[in-house]
Amino acid sequence: MRDANLPFLALNPGSSLVYLTGLHFHMSERPVVLIFPLEGVPSLILPELESQKTAQAAFDLKVFTYKESLETWGVAFADACEASSVGSQRVGVEPGTLRVLELRFLEGACPDASFVTAEMAIAELRMQKDTEELALMRHATHIAENALRQTLPAVVEGVSELAIASKLVGNMLELGSGGELPFQPIIAFGANSANPHAVPSDYQLQRGDLVLFDWGANNQGYFSDLTRMFSLGEPETELCNVVEIVHRANTAAREVSAPGIPASAIDQAARTTIEAAGYGEYFVHRTGHGLGLEVHEPPYIRSDNSEILKPGMTYTIEPGIYLNGRGGARIEDDMVITADAAESLSTFPRELTVLGQ
Amino acid sequence: MRDANLPFLALNPGSSLVYLTGLHFHMSERPVVLIFPLEGVPSLILPELESQKTAQAAFDLKVFTYKESLETWGVAFADACEASSVGSQRVGVEPGTLRVLELRFLEGACPDASFVTAEMAIAELRMQKDTEELALMRHATHIAENALRQTLPAVVEGVSELAIASKLVGNMLELGSGGELPFQPIIAFGANSANPHAVPSDYQLQRGDLVLFDWGANNQGYFSDLTRMFSLGEPETELCNVVEIVHRANTAAREVSAPGIPASAIDQAARTTIEAAGYGEYFVHRTGHGLGLEVHEPPYIRSDNSEILKPGMTYTIEPGIYLNGRGGARIEDDMVITADAAESLSTFPRELTVLGQ
Repeated sequence: MRDANLPFLALNPGSSLVYLTGLHFHMSERPVVLIFPLEGVPSLILPELESQKTAQAAFDLKVFTYKESLETWGVAFADACEASSVGSQRVGVEPGTLRVLELRFLEGACPDASFVTAEMAIAELRMQKDTEELALMRHATHIAENALRQTLPAVVEGVSELAIASKLVGNMLELGSGGELPFQPIIAFGANSANPHAVPSDYQLQRGDLVLFDWGANNQGYFSDLTRMFSLGEPETELCNVVEIVHRANTAAREVSAPGIPASAIDQAARTTIEAAGYGEYFVHRTGHGLGLEVHEPPYIRSDNSEILKPGMTYTIEPGIYLNGRGGARIEDDMVITADAAESLSTFPRELTVLGQ
Repeated sequence: MRDANLPFLALNPGSSLVYLTGLHFHMSERPVVLIFPLEGVPSLILPELESQKTAQAAFDLKVFTYKESLETWGVAFADACEASSVGSQRVGVEPGTLRVLELRFLEGACPDASFVTAEMAIAELRMQKDTEELALMRHATHIAENALRQTLPAVVEGVSELAIASKLVGNMLELGSGGELPFQPIIAFGANSANPHAVPSDYQLQRGDLVLFDWGANNQGYFSDLTRMFSLGEPETELCNVVEIVHRANTAAREVSAPGIPASAIDQAARTTIEAAGYGEYFVHRTGHGLGLEVHEPPYIRSDNSEILKPGMTYTIEPGIYLNGRGGARIEDDMVITADAAESLSTFPRELTVLGQ
């Protein structure tokens, strides 16, 4: 906060609040905001209904509760801002998490303060994972890979994407995943695999279809995020080639990963591989994103990101090629930068696996 | 929009965007905003990666895409605001859904516009459900009730809250629930049931414990949200009495429900029942909330809400009594106001059910 010239932070429920405090709150229509001063005791604004949770706090807190009646909400914000002596100072907020709901209450309570982004200041803290965090992420990867193994026998002719997605989720929960998954699994058969953000449908698997699994588990708040490619019987030759090219791009990006290089170099390794094979225009997204308590967080593995990678940073590598109306392929691993290289937390085979033979 | 003096609406991904357009987008670190003018063609700002989805739109759209590179994002917002001629007019936003991320891009693109709440204007549209919506909600309730029935045999001595929560979720998905549940089920045993927002833990069920299920399913985006009380063997007498008092409060609130009364009258019916029994101070929350595409939406069933109920409005009734350190009870139904009365969509028995006898 000192380095970023932020005398205050104001955070609402989300992964940064969990990271900094260990406190879990719901994001709901009832605003919850924790105001951290650079020095002194933080102030927590929350509904009376949730006040029991403050007993979990491992640090001193000034608590300002409001009741169900709406007129009490602004009073709690005003009291908290006054107790924190915010005045006309800068208050760091997270633009991707704080809503207009909380912002307007904060603006009303601290009319002279300026609310500026604390995104990079908080990312600096969260990007380099410690040993305990990495152990949690490694296990999140194992849960996901084991759930995949348990689900594959159900991938047979005529099964729907939705049925496979339900089974996969059930298996992850049974294996210990938290219920708040990083995202709803993408199970995409045939031409649906050409949509990078496909939603499972009642489409039924046919022979020759590609089968894309993009899924992840939650281990005590830390996520995994993987993609693997299968097919039912042999798909057409070009689709097989596309999976092989994506596999080479994934390998190139994993192999170039190391401390001291910019995030853009990883994107470049994947992208030049796909471009050299003549499919550059069909690789329509960045190569990856940071991963941890959020499924998308810094560092972003993008061609314009010159951020230097450091040990403990964790991110996905997920190049893809998408042929509209025919099929697409993506192969995704979860990486961690080590002292002198990088390691994939995920080890499930990356080749196209032909099922039903 | 005309009635609310809102020449524009600017919505990001969420239930109102689905309700108004049928378009499903992810909320992610990449902003997506649809600007609706009172007249003319809406403008959609979105990442190029998601541009395929615009093909689903059943209406004309001007599309403004940006690329992975950050400097292209503000350009797309500026182009969209200019194409919409926003100028210095009022733009309605949803404070509980729009984030500071989207707000700052909108403010940058339309520096003279004022961004004001459209919450009530949109709620007016969404509150009264039509026949098709009610059929979807009724089935969401059936999925939840059937999943409960399938899960109850697993509620035995020594089972953990987490294990029951996993089974319940698996059963809902198998029965056709969408993967994005309204909330992670609250399964709370013994003293944990005294926390209205308990999170399932590895606590193991003991004889004499109360067992609280608070759960719901997703049927094509429409939610159910129920709570029922069980016990393993007989709990202590006061806890049995508490469940019975909550049952009476739930019944009173259901019976008073009708078109033409204010939401506060329903809260009052539940609250006076619990107060008359001497437990008023332990009923620490409102009696209920609207339900539909969101798990908490207007109308809120609160003592200070004078909003008049109308046919088609759907909401929960969920009085509770919480004895810290000992146990709590809540009994929750999903109601719809009919032409001359009200109906509960949920029919599972509301009495305390003693298991393991």
